[in-house]
Amino acid sequence: MTVTVIGLGPMGQALAGALLKAGHDVTVWNRTESKAAELLSRGAQWAPNPADAVAASDVTLVNVVDHDAVDAVAAAAGDLAGRVLVGLSSDTPERARSTAKLVADAGGRYLDGAIMTPTEVMGTPDASVLYAGPQDLFDSHRGLFDVLGQVTWLGEDLGRAAAYDMALLDVFWTATGGFLHAVEIARAQGITPGQLLRHALGIAAILPPIFTEITERVEADRHDEASASVSSAAASLSHLIATSESSGVDAGALKAMKRYADAAVVAGHGDAEISRLGVAMRR
Amino acid sequence: MTVTVIGLGPMGQALAGALLKAGHDVTVWNRTESKAAELLSRGAQWAPNPADAVAASDVTLVNVVDHDAVDAVAAAAGDLAGRVLVGLSSDTPERARSTAKLVADAGGRYLDGAIMTPTEVMGTPDASVLYAGPQDLFDSHRGLFDVLGQVTWLGEDLGRAAAYDMALLDVFWTATGGFLHAVEIARAQGITPGQLLRHALGIAAILPPIFTEITERVEADRHDEASASVSSAAASLSHLIATSESSGVDAGALKAMKRYADAAVVAGHGDAEISRLGVAMRR
Ligand SMILES: NC(=O)c1ccc[n+]([C@@H]2O[C@H](COP(=O)([O-])OP(=O)(O)OC[C@H]3O[C@@H](n4cnc5c(N)ncnc54)[C@H](OP(=O)(O)O)[C@@H]3O)[C@@H](O)[C@H]2O)c1
Ligand SMILES: NC(=O)c1ccc[n+]([C@@H]2O[C@H](COP(=O)([O-])OP(=O)(O)OC[C@H]3O[C@@H](n4cnc5c(N)ncnc54)[C@H](OP(=O)(O)O)[C@@H]3O)[C@@H](O)[C@H]2O)c1
Repeated sequence: MTVTVIGLGPMGQALAGALLKAGHDVTVWNRTESKAAELLSRGAQWAPNPADAVAASDVTLVNVVDHDAVDAVAAAAGDLAGRVLVGLSSDTPERARSTAKLVADAGGRYLDGAIMTPTEVMGTPDASVLYAGPQDLFDSHRGLFDVLGQVTWLGEDLGRAAAYDMALLDVFWTATGGFLHAVEIARAQGITPGQLLRHALGIAAILPPIFTEITERVEADRHDEASASVSSAAASLSHLIATSESSGVDAGALKAMKRYADAAVVAGHGDAEISRLGVAMRR
Repeated sequence: MTVTVIGLGPMGQALAGALLKAGHDVTVWNRTESKAAELLSRGAQWAPNPADAVAASDVTLVNVVDHDAVDAVAAAAGDLAGRVLVGLSSDTPERARSTAKLVADAGGRYLDGAIMTPTEVMGTPDASVLYAGPQDLFDSHRGLFDVLGQVTWLGEDLGRAAAYDMALLDVFWTATGGFLHAVEIARAQGITPGQLLRHALGIAAILPPIFTEITERVEADRHDEASASVSSAAASLSHLIATSESSGVDAGALKAMKRYADAAVVAGHGDAEISRLGVAMRR
């Protein structure tokens, strides 16, 4: 199968690299041509513009920063009659749907995808990509998607992969931002990142059972018989905020959490399990 | 060894339960007596007040909500001559040090600890507790601590366990809060917590290598050759914030992260790896 990859940031390079490794004929285009150099040395073909790039292959993967950029690329590609575009850029569900319409208006067909994986594992069984859109289109490209990593099909709603993407990136960015923040607090307390890491990996290891318990409790709307209570969380967060600020580190994310905990206490849920905090995040 | 446990919230009950299971003579006191009922039925002894509780055993573990409560308990216990208190409540490093002084002034000796584990695993090899304070005191109680779970000794600085606690709770609360937040966003998009969970566990699984890479980069102060860039994060966070707000979910924590990403872009680090974001959190 011939495949085009448009967008050669870190992830686009990883995508094109994985496809080359699997023996596909790969054509690439990127706004900044220099980023194609390594892929060209590995056998990729350069297309001089988005229109030629899309024309060169059976299917085109578009992996640019967001859907403003996807739509700009699609517009530059012009007539898309008989062409298949697979968007793998992160954006809101609304933007995924509007790109699908734009592609359809130009005569093409569109599938939306969301990459849940760092660049390093792209093209291995550890990688995970979510897809949504017309099922026949998904089925006929399944072999290609299998090359990239684990494949999850989320149905025909073109916003579905982006909806999962938003929720899952939320987990990713808060946890990753929290670790970066913890590294700064630790530093101010004379603890090196390396000293912190071993124990932070211990925290990462307790997240799966905690996410699982929260899920069960939220699905059952059952927050009593707390093992970790909202009022205990509120106390804990106030010490954290004090330590962050006395360490010279902004405490913005912790303060948001503290507002939810305080609101839940005021609403009479201090003794509830922390699974109750989600409700306090609703506006 | 005779052991007293003061504080019978969810964690205090788990501590006392683990000690009973290991065959220790356990005395308990809690401000609210009713929380002792289950432990008494399993063989624990009730002490009518903190002074009798501390007098009943070789060593007393204090596990109440914070160090205001620890200090209130220590004051109520009165004379601590010849007594050993181990504080296992979460609070700032300063509060751990000031409790140690208060105990010393009453004639007792103090070790500070921090529990890095949910109640369910207390007393198993999956549990982890950090300790700091006088080494001879730690060494002479090591056998007791081994009953609770994995033991980490952090040195004689009495604020050290609390300093680790603050940084590690930061990871815990941001990640757990992020998952709760993601569940709310998902719900608004028609995705159930159970549907989200499987993929959220996939995100939890990529955190260890990401924390490890961030640690290496921060220690080396090397943020170039990005595989996930600050500007890509800024774009991603703006979609997340828009989705959160259009879902009726407060975006406070994500907005804090976005401020750091924007500040790093403005400072010329848009192409840097996300490991560079910690610097933008400093005030
Ligand atoms: N990196 C990761 O770990 C990762 C993981 C999961 C998902 N993703 C998602 O994958 C997508 C790509 O990410 P990335 O890390 O490779 O880098 P990125 O910084 O998000 O995107 C860079 C790419 O977008 C292109 N671009 C930006 N504006 C454009 C425009 N107006 N027209 C055409 N091209 C434009 C850039 O071209 P130039 O080279 O010319 O600037 C470059 O190819 C993003 O949506 C990201 O959220 C990334
Ligand atoms: N639960 C967890 O998963 C977990 C994990 C790691 C660390 N920790 C830490 O362990 C400690 C205890 O946590 P927890 O979950 O058991 O519950 P908690 O809600 O943090 O603390 C409840 C305990 O504190 C007591 N207390 C509060 N104010 C008091 C005062 N002024 N005087 C005397 N006692 C007072 C309560 O007595 P009453 O019963 O009379 O109210 C109860 O025994 C906290 O520092 C927490 O951060 C908990």
